[in-house]
Amino acid sequence: MRPVKVGLLGLGTVGTGVVRIVEGHQEDLQTQVGSPIMIEKVLVQNKSKSRNISISPDKLTEDPWEIIRHPEIDVIVEVMGGIEHTKEYILEALSLGKHVVTANKDLMALHGAEILAKAQEHRCDVLYEASVAGGIPIIRTLVEGFSSDRITKIMGIVNGTTNYILTKMSQEGASYADVLKEAQELGYAEADPTSDVEGLDAARKMTILSTLGFRSNVALEDVSAQGISSVSKEDILYAKRLGYELKLLGIAERQDDQISVSVQPTMVKKSHPIASVNGVFNAVYVYGEAVGETMFYGAGAGELPTATSIVADLVAVVKNLKLGVNGKQGAVAYKEKKLKTDEQISSKYFLLLHVADRAGVLARITQVFADFEVSLESVLQQPNPSNPEAEIIIITHDASKAAIQKVLGEFKSLDVVHKVKSVYRVEG
Amino acid sequence: MRPVKVGLLGLGTVGTGVVRIVEGHQEDLQTQVGSPIMIEKVLVQNKSKSRNISISPDKLTEDPWEIIRHPEIDVIVEVMGGIEHTKEYILEALSLGKHVVTANKDLMALHGAEILAKAQEHRCDVLYEASVAGGIPIIRTLVEGFSSDRITKIMGIVNGTTNYILTKMSQEGASYADVLKEAQELGYAEADPTSDVEGLDAARKMTILSTLGFRSNVALEDVSAQGISSVSKEDILYAKRLGYELKLLGIAERQDDQISVSVQPTMVKKSHPIASVNGVFNAVYVYGEAVGETMFYGAGAGELPTATSIVADLVAVVKNLKLGVNGKQGAVAYKEKKLKTDEQISSKYFLLLHVADRAGVLARITQVFADFEVSLESVLQQPNPSNPEAEIIIITHDASKAAIQKVLGEFKSLDVVHKVKSVYRVEG
Repeated sequence: MRPVKVGLLGLGTVGTGVVRIVEGHQEDLQTQVGSPIMIEKVLVQNKSKSRNISISPDKLTEDPWEIIRHPEIDVIVEVMGGIEHTKEYILEALSLGKHVVTANKDLMALHGAEILAKAQEHRCDVLYEASVAGGIPIIRTLVEGFSSDRITKIMGIVNGTTNYILTKMSQEGASYADVLKEAQELGYAEADPTSDVEGLDAARKMTILSTLGFRSNVALEDVSAQGISSVSKEDILYAKRLGYELKLLGIAERQDDQISVSVQPTMVKKSHPIASVNGVFNAVYVYGEAVGETMFYGAGAGELPTATSIVADLVAVVKNLKLGVNGKQGAVAYKEKKLKTDEQISSKYFLLLHVADRAGVLARITQVFADFEVSLESVLQQPNPSNPEAEIIIITHDASKAAIQKVLGEFKSLDVVHKVKSVYRVEG
Repeated sequence: MRPVKVGLLGLGTVGTGVVRIVEGHQEDLQTQVGSPIMIEKVLVQNKSKSRNISISPDKLTEDPWEIIRHPEIDVIVEVMGGIEHTKEYILEALSLGKHVVTANKDLMALHGAEILAKAQEHRCDVLYEASVAGGIPIIRTLVEGFSSDRITKIMGIVNGTTNYILTKMSQEGASYADVLKEAQELGYAEADPTSDVEGLDAARKMTILSTLGFRSNVALEDVSAQGISSVSKEDILYAKRLGYELKLLGIAERQDDQISVSVQPTMVKKSHPIASVNGVFNAVYVYGEAVGETMFYGAGAGELPTATSIVADLVAVVKNLKLGVNGKQGAVAYKEKKLKTDEQISSKYFLLLHVADRAGVLARITQVFADFEVSLESVLQQPNPSNPEAEIIIITHDASKAAIQKVLGEFKSLDVVHKVKSVYRVEG
């Protein structure tokens, strides 16, 4: 069989990893797929820039169309990132019958349905294992490994930057601002960290995972996202004291075919397997009706872990090419989407309140919960060490999101509640 | 497309789970594969036995050949267990062009190469995800998810019975005999627990995992196996005190294409992700040169978790049927097998010795290690509370298996060493 030719869009960290793996493991890959895999052309921003990988200058181009429209290129590997231009390139490549492997979570979260429909139309493969949780083969697991099961819950630590920050805050008692600064110096956080710390990156990944896990087209705007920028070291201290770790969790749930997807800092019981996932590692916990609890753990980012997933997708495309069965993976999202309302979304909550330190306050506060039919698992009142007021820590039983919002609304008009310091979802 | 017809060999726990999932998820499965999946015939030992599942009596048969040679059956699902007869049925089914899904680790560990060759010859699929770690899709992960990587280490807790026993011993300070008895009463351990507690079951699973991970035909006799029946509660107490958990680990390692595979009770540092896998849960930790550390966690056994994997394999076979590409998954084991010698197998070791309590003993003992060039990471001597002798606990640096055996041989002729109480491999 003639060599399979690949056009690589982007030669940053991950692109370099792809070149290294395709070249370093050429013999193994060839044995598996039955033909050589050659990187034919690589899109770069500046051909003359010096690089820490040796690649023939003939292969470099600054013109994306030279790759997209190259008559001999079979597969496009997209690791340049971005949305509008990248989407244009990918749609054009598909319409020319080229298969696509991409690591682009932003693109797949926003335009996945359109891209997959285009691929279907032209009998092309679009694979995107690397778009979520780097080296962990979670997309394959959801689509193939659990094809026979009905997944009811997906909880993911899918953003390494925020998990690094929360881990450091927990282990060293450091403040959010100090750890963010350190993470930026180490290259674990961007100069503008908004997308990571506000939960947007995680929301994009949860859009992809919930679409695959629940087989319904979940859109990014269906995912409510809250980040970690207002998490204080006191919150983490309280979490630990009560036997929890605070983690930024993406949570997708399904009940009677109604779904909800969210990203928020969450108190996770220490005995839950996801509570001990630390540092830049990612993990995805999946609960299926038949399989029960499972968890998949590994590096969520980085040159080689991400490239591993990309090249595994490339191997799958080339195997399909050999068998003549590209573009036949079938529809992934064939179920009608029904979103839960805030009345239907239910979980336990942790609340930390600063209140007036006088008789009858606790009774008034707990009455508010009772008025909205929220029952309480535990209540702790103690003096606030820094102010002449009391702190009340409450963990509720399962309550609807709507009911908690009503409780919080009511607290605003209650003069004895000086401040609702923190509200977190509780899991495990 | 006409319905795909399945012949089920066995209607025990797992077989019942397969019927439940195929019937309960029929609509979902049909949407995914494009045709109904029907269980046509089921082999049972006694047709008139009462069952906790409703199945038409016409479908039951006590004659395996009625299923194997049934002209309309496309796929055989084998969940009856056993080796010699089962192999005969499967080979005959393959030679008649029927595809096979099996949960039979014993059969695949002993005769996998022969069965896969027969399948290749007749262009049939043989899938066996359920044979290792129940509901965890670890075979798919090794073969497809990590197709682009070079796996260098696989460590597995792949036997739920022994993990349950060790967890209980660790958490409750109970003795092996007491916990085994309890596990037998709860149905977690067989009346004859030999295969589980002596590490044979785990060795079979490691044969399968290492063959796939290292792409070489590892045979069961290549796997050295040691079980947990001589683990004492003191061993576990010492492990915990030193910051370790004692786990029955299957360990497969590769270095410069030389491999070793073993099963043994192992002291695992508490910070290692596999150390906190408790109870009947299974987990497989995989280290790849590119992807780094990963771990896959879930239920290792049970009706529905195991059936999940079987039906996911069935979905894959039916998709291949639809595409006309069965039997083309390619060779999984194309590398020549080179086993490490005992001189090349290296790890850290824990030793607990009972020695004479007099001057110069420690010097003589540590001299033995020095003679065989084993260097020591830590040494602790303390009085033995129950005897007028001393206990010495040693953790070595990396040492070859051969060197440790020489050290142990030398201790036999050393009168100051009363007893080598325990020797364990150390990881993490």
